Amino acid sequence: MTAADILALLQDRGETLAVAESLTGGLLAAEFITVPGASAVFRGGVVAYATDLKASLLGVPPPLLHSHGPVDPSVAAAMAAGARERCGADWAAATTGVAGPDPQGGQPVGRVYVAVAGPLPGHAAVRELTLQGDRPAVRSGAVDAAVALLAERLAITITSR
Amino acid sequence: MTAADILALLQDRGETLAVAESLTGGLLAAEFITVPGASAVFRGGVVAYATDLKASLLGVPPPLLHSHGPVDPSVAAAMAAGARERCGADWAAATTGVAGPDPQGGQPVGRVYVAVAGPLPGHAAVRELTLQGDRPAVRSGAVDAAVALLAERLAITITSR
Repeated sequence: MTAADILALLQDRGETLAVAESLTGGLLAAEFITVPGASAVFRGGVVAYATDLKASLLGVPPPLLHSHGPVDPSVAAAMAAGARERCGADWAAATTGVAGPDPQGGQPVGRVYVAVAGPLPGHAAVRELTLQGDRPAVRSGAVDAAVALLAERLAITITSR
Repeated sequence: MTAADILALLQDRGETLAVAESLTGGLLAAEFITVPGASAVFRGGVVAYATDLKASLLGVPPPLLHSHGPVDPSVAAAMAAGARERCGADWAAATTGVAGPDPQGGQPVGRVYVAVAGPLPGHAAVRELTLQGDRPAVRSGAVDAAVALLAERLAITITSR
């Protein structure tokens, strides 16, 4: 399921989407706004590249950032929940990870967490990835993984109804 | 002056950067985070694709949005000022405009405003553009224009010291 498929599905369901990005730095948002008619579904997002912006712009608890660092599954989940709330969207997808060239906060290059938040607590999910390649490859892989996780969680909702 | 040149200059000056985006939807942020070492300078940004997020996430006055619409020079300036403040950055660049295929809020396809906010009120600037081409071309042109305006305002600061 592509970004265009996701937007079409959400439009059919009357639901909206937001994103929160760290290492992908705008690329996940760009994946959605490239689709004609995206504005009916895609509300916007936050690029929280600096760690403190994950707290101030997305509401990630500072103690979580201090104890776990910015590249962490709980942080990814909190970023998705924060984007969903602050952008007033039904769904949100988030990315955090280490694009390289250097490790960050005890995490190796290529370690990425993507997360999704949805209308119900059960929609939430986080996935850990270890991606290979240079900075563009890690970023591109993180975008693809976020889109894929969002597609999965949207499908779960459909089949459970 | 490329995005990489801008980041190098800001790093030399000990200053930081943020962005606020509407029609470019993450592409301006991506232009900066693609540069290795961007995290020393680039703090983050807001993709305020939906009009109401320009108010809630960037502090653009709602009466301004209601009276002028989202594609407006004053809105672009307020987006840059808001991104600068909310991201805790010394400088910010903003984009708003009509990528197409349809006109929006009384503005034709290709009408774009880019804005910059800096440490002093005199650093602020807004530029109106009328860009040709399809959606990707308009977006790419808007990114280039925002980078160019930022480079100009940074140079003005240098020569006036």
